Amino acid sequence: MEDKMICSGFQAAGIVAGIKKNGRKDLGLIFAEKTATVAGVFTTNKVQAAPVLLDRQRIPAGRCRAIVVNSGNANCCTGARGLQDAEAMARSVAAELGIPPELVLVASTGVIGEPLPVDKILSAAPQLVHALSPDGFSDLAQAIMTTDTIPKLLTARGQIDGRPYTITGVAKGAGMIRPDMATMLCFVCTDIDMPADLLQKALQTAVAGSFNRITIDGDTSTNDTVLLMAGGTSGARVRTAAHCATFQQALDDLFVRLARMIVKDGEGVTKLVEIVVQGARTDDDARRIADTVCHSNLVKTAFFGEDANWGRIIAAAGRAGADIDPDAIDIYFDDVRMVKNGVGRGKQVEAQATAVLKKPEFTVTIDLNLGSHRASMLTCDFSIDYVKINADYRT
Amino acid sequence: MEDKMICSGFQAAGIVAGIKKNGRKDLGLIFAEKTATVAGVFTTNKVQAAPVLLDRQRIPAGRCRAIVVNSGNANCCTGARGLQDAEAMARSVAAELGIPPELVLVASTGVIGEPLPVDKILSAAPQLVHALSPDGFSDLAQAIMTTDTIPKLLTARGQIDGRPYTITGVAKGAGMIRPDMATMLCFVCTDIDMPADLLQKALQTAVAGSFNRITIDGDTSTNDTVLLMAGGTSGARVRTAAHCATFQQALDDLFVRLARMIVKDGEGVTKLVEIVVQGARTDDDARRIADTVCHSNLVKTAFFGEDANWGRIIAAAGRAGADIDPDAIDIYFDDVRMVKNGVGRGKQVEAQATAVLKKPEFTVTIDLNLGSHRASMLTCDFSIDYVKINADYRT
Repeated sequence: MEDKMICSGFQAAGIVAGIKKNGRKDLGLIFAEKTATVAGVFTTNKVQAAPVLLDRQRIPAGRCRAIVVNSGNANCCTGARGLQDAEAMARSVAAELGIPPELVLVASTGVIGEPLPVDKILSAAPQLVHALSPDGFSDLAQAIMTTDTIPKLLTARGQIDGRPYTITGVAKGAGMIRPDMATMLCFVCTDIDMPADLLQKALQTAVAGSFNRITIDGDTSTNDTVLLMAGGTSGARVRTAAHCATFQQALDDLFVRLARMIVKDGEGVTKLVEIVVQGARTDDDARRIADTVCHSNLVKTAFFGEDANWGRIIAAAGRAGADIDPDAIDIYFDDVRMVKNGVGRGKQVEAQATAVLKKPEFTVTIDLNLGSHRASMLTCDFSIDYVKINADYRT
Repeated sequence: MEDKMICSGFQAAGIVAGIKKNGRKDLGLIFAEKTATVAGVFTTNKVQAAPVLLDRQRIPAGRCRAIVVNSGNANCCTGARGLQDAEAMARSVAAELGIPPELVLVASTGVIGEPLPVDKILSAAPQLVHALSPDGFSDLAQAIMTTDTIPKLLTARGQIDGRPYTITGVAKGAGMIRPDMATMLCFVCTDIDMPADLLQKALQTAVAGSFNRITIDGDTSTNDTVLLMAGGTSGARVRTAAHCATFQQALDDLFVRLARMIVKDGEGVTKLVEIVVQGARTDDDARRIADTVCHSNLVKTAFFGEDANWGRIIAAAGRAGADIDPDAIDIYFDDVRMVKNGVGRGKQVEAQATAVLKKPEFTVTIDLNLGSHRASMLTCDFSIDYVKINADYRT
């Protein structure tokens, strides 16, 4: 984090509004000094929080000046009142900033099903706007944390036609993470100039290759939101396919790094594990197996126990609904081939595999030896602390 | 358990053969004094243990004299040697009993991927056969336990055309339990007289309504086996559709009771929870939601924490891929309606719901209020002990 986390044309803030019981920062704001283009991707869950419903209405216009976000309450399953509260959040910030309320997007994360303490947010709006600063992204990253243990904030820089640009993103994750997003919030600002339709495509591509390929506990949330704003103040302009490709690469890279940070800081996580399935007959087969192995509680508890229990991996592959030949499967822990043709290679190799599992990050490769298709996914172990955190979450 | 656990025409045994490291019983046998008809249902996992492959070859003949079973090793992912070992198990018992080896079925449960210590089994065969006794089912129930904490053994009695009959079953479960079976073994004897084809139908119906509607951790095993033998020594004969219906009811009831015992004794389980989904547009919608809620780690950890966190239940329903209207959903904990039209009913009702969650057994009903279809499934909480047990399983 040597880079200064600033992005020209944007300011951010994060303050304590009293929503969280622990007295930590819980209200954040991003402000674009000029109207930015905007793109958004949201949860696929059929139960959607009020701020998601509101943003979905506002995103198609493609323009945005501010995003206001709270943690400590998801404003979900809160009925008509929830929508009114989300609109009131946007209105209060718009009034302080002197901008139209339709140009404000809203996000919330926290407990589902309790009314939003909207009065606390409305009273805090003047202080929130007052706290805006070009280097306020670090405060913002703290204000969106729930069970996260570290704030997630990254900046990347690139050039288009010789003109430098910046991308700065904050994210939160921790629990309820699985493909098709999660209780995951991510807000990204760039000072590039890019039309909203191209921005939307770029965002969808970046999400597919990053946040939709990570999993912590297999639950998806009602509040997942990724928003990308392009302010255009750097002078770098995205107009051609080549420009798009350059920017896409920078964006993908930033998203993958944020996604890794999210899994690594997952609830109770001690191991970050990449599951690679190769040699599959089809992409779909490879993805099904990666998905099933990544979500198997028996596999994940074995990772926590640093146990090279490949039998659980092969059993998970067997129930994935994919085309496999059990007698052709090889399994590697990093470079250690633990299983050859569906059979274990004995105690000596197991000792080498166990050494791999003692590392904080490693890769498990499942080679089906049937074809040339491949998929990979990031997962984590399943620890005693995950259960403790989630048994006591609301208390 | 006041009933004496015997079934005329059958004997059983369970002994210590030294396969388990903890010195407990690990080798069991059921013996039919006359050749019985037999039916079997097996795992749907594509990775299947050697004994499953062997039994699948032998079941179609419809006749059986004995079942030999070991715990402590699954004889799975053991290649050609595994099949030879399973056959050797059957042969050794057949030789001692003086019956054809093709009339012996085999089952194994335990760690996957380690060679079966078959020599221990072959040397123990004479002692195993010597231990056979009409009241040996209790020893058998102990011999098939892995992480189970209590043996599971039930007897039911009925009448057909005035002639009494008995059904006696043993089962093991504990981990790797989900619909489509699990590391679940169940052996059931009845002294009824019933053709093998009718017996197979009855078994499939009973499994669909019991073992395929329970879940502990969402993992299915490579070794699931349910075998049903009908010895015919009671004089009760199943020949007509009415006979079938009578017997089916008794069998279903016994299987449901065994299935409940399995979930209640699941790894680390402190809560037995029935999830009922009603008011669905289709059966499939109801089943999808029941399945997703039953497998949600966030829901299950909340049960462990005795937290009426209905937001997690509604979020799981939302990602089930079923047709729902979030604003129409009601959720009950036993009789307490905690959620009405998708919105929580406040702190007072929550206190009543929390009282329900403190009970060891309760029902969660999700009413979609969209139609008349319904599904139910048994699940359990997800505790710290589950993680401890499964992180350390092989050590």
